[in-house]
Amino acid sequence: MNTTPTPRDRFKAFSKEYIPMIDSSIHGFLEVKKKDARLPVISDMYGLLEEYCCREGKRVRPLIMLISCFGYQRGKRREDAVKIASVIEMMHSFLLIQDDIIDRSELRRGGQSLHMACAGRYGGNSHNRNIGNDIALILADVLFAAAVEILAGSNVPPRVKDRFLRIFSSTYEVTAWGQILDILHSRSKKIDDPGDASITVATMKTAYYTVYYPMLMGYVLAGRNADQEKELIRDFSLPLGLAFQIRDDILGVFGSKEATGKPSNSDIMEGKVTMLINSTIEKLKPRERKKFMAIFTKNKKTGRDVDAIRHMIDASGSREAVVERHWELVEQSRSLLSRLQLSEEYREIMTGLVELVAKI
Amino acid sequence: MNTTPTPRDRFKAFSKEYIPMIDSSIHGFLEVKKKDARLPVISDMYGLLEEYCCREGKRVRPLIMLISCFGYQRGKRREDAVKIASVIEMMHSFLLIQDDIIDRSELRRGGQSLHMACAGRYGGNSHNRNIGNDIALILADVLFAAAVEILAGSNVPPRVKDRFLRIFSSTYEVTAWGQILDILHSRSKKIDDPGDASITVATMKTAYYTVYYPMLMGYVLAGRNADQEKELIRDFSLPLGLAFQIRDDILGVFGSKEATGKPSNSDIMEGKVTMLINSTIEKLKPRERKKFMAIFTKNKKTGRDVDAIRHMIDASGSREAVVERHWELVEQSRSLLSRLQLSEEYREIMTGLVELVAKI
Repeated sequence: MNTTPTPRDRFKAFSKEYIPMIDSSIHGFLEVKKKDARLPVISDMYGLLEEYCCREGKRVRPLIMLISCFGYQRGKRREDAVKIASVIEMMHSFLLIQDDIIDRSELRRGGQSLHMACAGRYGGNSHNRNIGNDIALILADVLFAAAVEILAGSNVPPRVKDRFLRIFSSTYEVTAWGQILDILHSRSKKIDDPGDASITVATMKTAYYTVYYPMLMGYVLAGRNADQEKELIRDFSLPLGLAFQIRDDILGVFGSKEATGKPSNSDIMEGKVTMLINSTIEKLKPRERKKFMAIFTKNKKTGRDVDAIRHMIDASGSREAVVERHWELVEQSRSLLSRLQLSEEYREIMTGLVELVAKI
Repeated sequence: MNTTPTPRDRFKAFSKEYIPMIDSSIHGFLEVKKKDARLPVISDMYGLLEEYCCREGKRVRPLIMLISCFGYQRGKRREDAVKIASVIEMMHSFLLIQDDIIDRSELRRGGQSLHMACAGRYGGNSHNRNIGNDIALILADVLFAAAVEILAGSNVPPRVKDRFLRIFSSTYEVTAWGQILDILHSRSKKIDDPGDASITVATMKTAYYTVYYPMLMGYVLAGRNADQEKELIRDFSLPLGLAFQIRDDILGVFGSKEATGKPSNSDIMEGKVTMLINSTIEKLKPRERKKFMAIFTKNKKTGRDVDAIRHMIDASGSREAVVERHWELVEQSRSLLSRLQLSEEYREIMTGLVELVAKI
C-alpha cells in the first residue's frame, strides 16, 4: 500500500539523511587535528572531544539551520552549509561540557560527562581533585577555537559571513545570560516571588538558542536578509522553542529515565524553577504554597520530598495548565509556518518538526 | 638638558598613549551592553566585566599587536586597529577568569578574582557553594561572544578578516593546549622525568600567546601576508616570549609580592614545573634530587618546605643557568629585530619592549 509520507516522516527522513553528514564533518575536522597534534596527549584529547561531540543525539539545532538554509535558498545550494551546521553542533558540545561542570552531572548522552572522563583518565598522578573539571573547561575552549577556524575558512560571501558571525555571537551571548539566570534561579534558599524568571530562562536558553538563532543562521546563510522575514522567523521560533521547553519540563518531572536520558527527578533535586514549577507556585493556595516552598528549597531532598513535590504539582493543576499553554504555543507556530517564505518541500519538513514538538 | 629618548622611553610613551585608548574601547563597548541589557542583573554583570577587563595591567598583547600593525602598515593607518586590539585584551580577561577558577586564586590585578566577586555578590540566597565559579565561567563566554561580535563588525577587508580570524582561532587553540599541559604538569604526586614539558608549556602558553600571535595579528591586519616575514616574526617572537616567561619564573620564586602582584611562593605551592624548577631537577645530584622531589610533590607545603625548595634552587646553580638562558634568548630576538621589515619608528618601540624583557 502506497501512502503519502506525513510531515513527520519527511522530517525523520531529512534527519536520517543529514545527521550522518553533520557527524562526518565533525569527525573529519577532529581527525585531522588528532593526526596533526604535536604531542600524543593532545592527540588523545582530540580523540576524547571527537567521541564526545559525535555521541548519539537529536542534532536539532544543526538540522533546523539546514532546513532553514535549504528552504530559503533560491538557486544553488550552499556547499559549506553542512560544515557550518557541524559548527553549531560542536558549539552545542561546548555548552554541554560547561553545563555538566556546573550541574556536576556524571553522565551525558549515554556516556560519561567530559569532566568525569578527564578525571578518570588524567587524575591518577595529581593532587588536584578538580583536575577533570579544569581540563574539561579548557577543552571546551578548544571547540570554540575550532568553530571560529571552520567559519573563517568557510566558502561564504564576505557580507554573509559577517552577518552570520554576528548572529553566531548573539547566540552564545544570549544563551550565556540564559544559563546565568538559570544558575541564579536554581538551588535557592528562599523564593519570594519567582516572577517570570522561568519564562525568561526558557526564552533565552531554549527558544532563542535552539530554534530562533539556528533558523536565522540558516536564513542569512541562504543569502537573505529581509527584516520582515526575520521578524516572522522570530514569531514562529519563539513559541515553538517555549513549547519545546515545556515538553522538556514535564518529561523532566514525569518522564521516564529511558525517554529523557537523565533521572526524572533531577530538575526537582536541583530546585530549578521551571515553567511547570512556576505555575505550581502560582496555583497553590497560600498554606500549600508555603509547604511546597519549604520542601522545594531544601538543599538535600529525600525520595519522599521528591514524591511530595510531584504530588503537589499534580494536585495544583499546573500540569494541565502548562500542557494547555504548550498547545497554544504550538498552535501559534503552526499558524505562522504558512506565512514563512520557505519552499514547500522544506515547509513540510519544518511542519514535521513542529508536530514532533506538539506530541507530549 | 635635552637627551634623545631611549627605545625604552619610546615604548613607555607608546604604552602611555595607547593603553587609555584600548581601555576606552573596552569601556565603550561594555557600557552600551550595560545600558541595553534587558534585565538589571545582566546590566550589573556587564558592569562587573567592565571593571574586571579595565583593571590596571600592562596590556602587553594588544600593544604588541598595535606596534606590529602600525610598523608594518604602508600608507593609511587601519582605523579599527585599536578596537581590534581591545578584543585581544578582552580575550585575555576571558583566559584570566578561567585561570583563576582553575588555580582557585582569590585575587587578580589588585582586586578580587571574578569568581570570588560573583560568589560574594550572588551567593547569598543559594545552596550552591560553587555559584561564584559557575557564574564566572559563563561570564567568560560573554567575553568571547563579544570578541566575535566586534571582529565581525570591524571595518577590515574580507580576506584580511578571514586571515585574522584564523590566527585568532589558533591563538586560543594553542593557548588552551598550553594551559592543559600546565594543568597536567602541576601538583603531580610523582615526577619521574619532567622532560621538556616546561619549555613546551612556556612556548605555547607564553611565547605563542603573548608575543608571536599578537605580532602576527598586527602583521596581517596591516594587510600583509608574506610567508618569509611570518617566519622571521616567529623567530623573533618565540625567544622573546620564552625570555619573558623565564623572567616571570624567577620573579615567581624570588620576586616580591609588590613586583608581581601575587605571593612569591605560589608557583612552588602549586608544584608548577617551570623552566627554573626543571633546570633545578636536572642539576641536582641524585640524592639531593630525591629530597627535592619529595618536598616539591607534597600536596600541602609548609613555609619551611618553601624555604627548603628555594634554598635548593639557589644551591643547584639553576638560577644562574636560566638567567644565562634568558640572556641568550634576548640576544636572539635582538639580532633578529633588525631583519624585520618594521618601519624605523616602530622598530625602536619594539626594541624598547625587548629591553624591558631583558632586565631581570
